[in-house]
Amino acid sequence: MYSVYTPQSIEESLSRWRQICRWARQHDRCYLYQKDEPITCESGLIYFVRRGVVRLSSQPMGIEDDILPSLLSLVGAAQPFELVRELHVSLQATAHVKNTEVFWIKASEVATVPGFEIDVLQAFRYQHQRHILRLNNLTRGRAVDQLLGYLHLVGEEFGEEDNRELHIPFPLTHSQLAGAIGSTRVTVTRLLGDLRKVGEIRVQGGNRISLPIAKNLPPSLHLVE
Amino acid sequence: MYSVYTPQSIEESLSRWRQICRWARQHDRCYLYQKDEPITCESGLIYFVRRGVVRLSSQPMGIEDDILPSLLSLVGAAQPFELVRELHVSLQATAHVKNTEVFWIKASEVATVPGFEIDVLQAFRYQHQRHILRLNNLTRGRAVDQLLGYLHLVGEEFGEEDNRELHIPFPLTHSQLAGAIGSTRVTVTRLLGDLRKVGEIRVQGGNRISLPIAKNLPPSLHLVE
Repeated sequence: MYSVYTPQSIEESLSRWRQICRWARQHDRCYLYQKDEPITCESGLIYFVRRGVVRLSSQPMGIEDDILPSLLSLVGAAQPFELVRELHVSLQATAHVKNTEVFWIKASEVATVPGFEIDVLQAFRYQHQRHILRLNNLTRGRAVDQLLGYLHLVGEEFGEEDNRELHIPFPLTHSQLAGAIGSTRVTVTRLLGDLRKVGEIRVQGGNRISLPIAKNLPPSLHLVE
Repeated sequence: MYSVYTPQSIEESLSRWRQICRWARQHDRCYLYQKDEPITCESGLIYFVRRGVVRLSSQPMGIEDDILPSLLSLVGAAQPFELVRELHVSLQATAHVKNTEVFWIKASEVATVPGFEIDVLQAFRYQHQRHILRLNNLTRGRAVDQLLGYLHLVGEEFGEEDNRELHIPFPLTHSQLAGAIGSTRVTVTRLLGDLRKVGEIRVQGGNRISLPIAKNLPPSLHLVE
């Protein structure tokens, strides 16, 4: 079961993934999305990111119209996602980067490729482990720690290493970061400035953030908030 | 795959669960814990709550010694849990109620009962869905909304209905609730008082909380914080 990370099982999973992608293309299940384009999702279907990144967020409902959407999850290539229907929570999937390609599979179809069902559920288990770390981050410390902690989690999962830095390969706007830690855009702008000044992050054009690898340490700053 | 909720598949899952519990007892894998007793967990093993409730929390590390442990998850009967090892995060499992019984299974053993591997992964998928809702709650609104939202999530999962109320069947201390929403004990004490006054919750002796079922509505209060 939990041997998914041996070289052989990774090779087998990859082979199944390619097979599923081919199948999805042949059956016209792949859709291409532009940056920030909403992805219409049906309840009960499992969606897969073929390439790109999908942002799962929740829209404020009713009286909370002035509140930012929460950024709940960023789902990368070869990962599944699904929108849980819950009373009073409106979840939304959106293409986070251009040329994000997504396909869907019916519940009953997942079991047709032997081993694929386990692959999918293992991927959800992995996402569950990551979310435990996010909950830990969100219930701990000050906004600046939560912001830096969030950037480190995203960096660990998506970051590309180059020149002793971990580059987050897509932009994250100040509003999106505020929605990820339950803060406001104005606060995030200020905190990013503070983090930049003390060298904890480097911000390039277009809201692209890099983390120095030597600084890839516990987020426990002593900035004045 | 996702047919786990049909009556037949539920019956099959239950039968597998009983079989695994018997097996665990025969192999001396069951341990009984008293309330608030730590559960020593090994990395790479999967743990199962046979009865009772397990609290997953993270201990503050290093300079954060004065901060409350985060309450990351409450895991009920027949649910699995595992402690992800992460640099800089110290996760801890603790028996939340008396006579909590837990057994462990090696990764390689999970596949020995046909269908059980899928059951376990489906359970993690379910927990992942619940955590999406918790992330939504934690990144939205004020502390009072987060507190009430958290109580509703716990009530939905563990609550026992009686006399038009949903009773959370175990105590939650003010410190634990503070750790669940990243607040302080003093604030939680005040907010619980506010929620009690407006009839959103009822607090019985020993930190036992009930939610009126008619009030089982979106947590969108207008209390002055």
